[in-house]
Amino acid sequence: MVDIATRVWNHKWKIDPIVRSLIDTDFYKLLMCQSIFRNKPETSVVFTLINRSSKVRLADIIDEGELREQLDHVRSLSLTRGESTWLRGNTFYGKRQMFRPDFMQWFEGLRLPAYHLEKRDGQFELTFEGAWPEVMLWEIPALAVLMELRGRSVLNGMGKFELQVLYARAMTRAWEKIERLRRVDGLKIADFGTRRRHSFLWQDWAVQAMQEGLGPKFIGTSNCRIAMLRDIEAIGTNAHELPMVYSALADTDEELRDAPYQVLADWQEEHDGNLRIILPDTYGTEGFLRNAPDWLAGWTGIRIDSGDPATGAETAIRWWRERGEDPTQKLVIFSDGLDVDKIEELHAQFAGRVKVSFGWGTMLTNDFRGLVDGDALAPFSLVCKAQSANGRPTVKLSDNPAKAMGPKDEIERYKRIFGVGAQAAQPVEV
Amino acid sequence: MVDIATRVWNHKWKIDPIVRSLIDTDFYKLLMCQSIFRNKPETSVVFTLINRSSKVRLADIIDEGELREQLDHVRSLSLTRGESTWLRGNTFYGKRQMFRPDFMQWFEGLRLPAYHLEKRDGQFELTFEGAWPEVMLWEIPALAVLMELRGRSVLNGMGKFELQVLYARAMTRAWEKIERLRRVDGLKIADFGTRRRHSFLWQDWAVQAMQEGLGPKFIGTSNCRIAMLRDIEAIGTNAHELPMVYSALADTDEELRDAPYQVLADWQEEHDGNLRIILPDTYGTEGFLRNAPDWLAGWTGIRIDSGDPATGAETAIRWWRERGEDPTQKLVIFSDGLDVDKIEELHAQFAGRVKVSFGWGTMLTNDFRGLVDGDALAPFSLVCKAQSANGRPTVKLSDNPAKAMGPKDEIERYKRIFGVGAQAAQPVEV
Repeated sequence: MVDIATRVWNHKWKIDPIVRSLIDTDFYKLLMCQSIFRNKPETSVVFTLINRSSKVRLADIIDEGELREQLDHVRSLSLTRGESTWLRGNTFYGKRQMFRPDFMQWFEGLRLPAYHLEKRDGQFELTFEGAWPEVMLWEIPALAVLMELRGRSVLNGMGKFELQVLYARAMTRAWEKIERLRRVDGLKIADFGTRRRHSFLWQDWAVQAMQEGLGPKFIGTSNCRIAMLRDIEAIGTNAHELPMVYSALADTDEELRDAPYQVLADWQEEHDGNLRIILPDTYGTEGFLRNAPDWLAGWTGIRIDSGDPATGAETAIRWWRERGEDPTQKLVIFSDGLDVDKIEELHAQFAGRVKVSFGWGTMLTNDFRGLVDGDALAPFSLVCKAQSANGRPTVKLSDNPAKAMGPKDEIERYKRIFGVGAQAAQPVEV
Repeated sequence: MVDIATRVWNHKWKIDPIVRSLIDTDFYKLLMCQSIFRNKPETSVVFTLINRSSKVRLADIIDEGELREQLDHVRSLSLTRGESTWLRGNTFYGKRQMFRPDFMQWFEGLRLPAYHLEKRDGQFELTFEGAWPEVMLWEIPALAVLMELRGRSVLNGMGKFELQVLYARAMTRAWEKIERLRRVDGLKIADFGTRRRHSFLWQDWAVQAMQEGLGPKFIGTSNCRIAMLRDIEAIGTNAHELPMVYSALADTDEELRDAPYQVLADWQEEHDGNLRIILPDTYGTEGFLRNAPDWLAGWTGIRIDSGDPATGAETAIRWWRERGEDPTQKLVIFSDGLDVDKIEELHAQFAGRVKVSFGWGTMLTNDFRGLVDGDALAPFSLVCKAQSANGRPTVKLSDNPAKAMGPKDEIERYKRIFGVGAQAAQPVEV
């Protein structure tokens, strides 16, 4: 039987919204948002879209009007009662009431702020300006909207069965990856793929396939909406925007040198256990760990998000030993450029020496490589980053010079202050 | 929105019926049924199930109770008004009212006759006994029920996403075949896969994929129900049961020698054009053509259904030339053991020399080879054949001794009468 009401209802949509919930975002954005809301609520920031894959000329592929409709739709969203209840009442990392009442009250009243959109040289200049706790929540929906609109433009010309077979191929590929991962003893892996996903439905499929295929090896998803819908763990800690903005706000070299540690001092006041994860690479992992205060060695683990991951993990293990910590009790989360080969390799190399966990992103939720003509669905490297804070430019160095961001002279200043020497470039594909 | 009524309705089904329509059968069964209804209505026949793949122990795989429920459900079916209207009013092979009013009236009142089912040595002994026009309509639903029950038993233990990926893989494989066939210039191909299909829904999917993927190269389906639902051509002519039963009814060697030609004389009275297709292999193609009356050379074409297909086609071409016919105006339909390699090869060899067409069966509607553990979904060779007519055994020789049927002494007698010498055995996989 056709449900006529459903059919008619579907026809009433003016657009097919890509992002339909304010919590269709990464869990760590909400954790960071609360931290910012508490510690730096008055900071004014500019976030900007950066397409590192300049060959993908987004403004030629995506209709500007459609993009505006999708972004406008995101601005119309507010937290639903059920979402609010879930955030207020759910246990995250074993802790109840992780989100405090004052933050929840603010979040319940939030609408995302205005965006600024222009076309230039086949790309979109998309920026968001305003209070840090509001603007930072644009990052994930903006990326998800652009990724999915690009996909839709490619799928537009395809037939019904051609489409079905496209998804059949992508499902088969994803399942074969899951079947390989199933054979990895002691694996712990989470979905980190919201920002680069092919689409919401596809990410939701991938998460469910991981649930069925990996059982307890699948430890959760970074996507709050999916975590809520599927009743699974929401996963995530913190990201580069914290040290980037804290650093931009520093008035002196001395304050700048201290800024990344100040981020974690603030974090330590709020969180314990598995949320105490160091992200050390913003201005070079080596220098960050060398100059770190001793209390940081007591944290639960480290997330390796740029550079050669094995090198990063070995550096962390050495550092823990130097500080008198037992690496076998420490957690190493790999989250950069992962696919099955790399996951197997890193797991084989580090399981037992440390506790290993993986945050799997693009190649879980957007591996459509080679499935359409001209490889027009291949993933590409789109980010949305804090560009300035209170009028001062932000800088990111990372352990991969290809991921560096910021004005040239500021980059040189940061390199000097953080003692960053020569770095090996890694290709940035996703 | 969930359609609650649909959900509740679905729960009310005691079984999930495999065959849901009396015209979920091959078109040629209905053509032959009408011919038998007209020419041999009083013949009493026994049809029997034969599993040529004795390694597949059906009675160990399929629950007898479930099989009975499915067969009982088939017996509950009768022609619906819409089906009757379609058969009465539709144009088949360019001709209106192919099914005559007296036949339609009989068909509208028909229920399939009783079956006899026993288990022996891990196989089902399934026989149907009664008037030929009724019993012969059991062939396709009986095969479809057994094929699908075997599949269901394998699928029973699988998870939801595992199942989805299984179908994703099968779809991908089918689509890759279609993509290859799309590149064959001038191809004409039909679905002949009802009897060996994985399931009704899968056949229906395959037909629609052929429609989208092949466009006008896809000329129709043998399945009447799908032809009606999808508004495409129903395809088919006649089969071995006609010469087998006519031959069994022959009282003398002389009458036996003439029986296969009598079949076609009766057929010629009823049909013209593309329905005048010779099926020459029941008692050996060579002898059949050598001894054929001249009027048969005027028929539209030939169907090659056993033996080496290229040899069969060359034999036909030679025969047409000997009888003063122009082979380029003749149709050769290949319908035995086809898959893409063979289709490409035969098309390359015969296109232009004759009109070529393909009836693609098992490897279109049931290619699940290698997709589950133990290859438990691999197709196998199940047939349902006339075993006797008016108490006398039937015989089939075909161009492949592996497909021969009948009592040994009768096979020898038929070989002598039809002048069949040495034959090359071909493996019978589907």
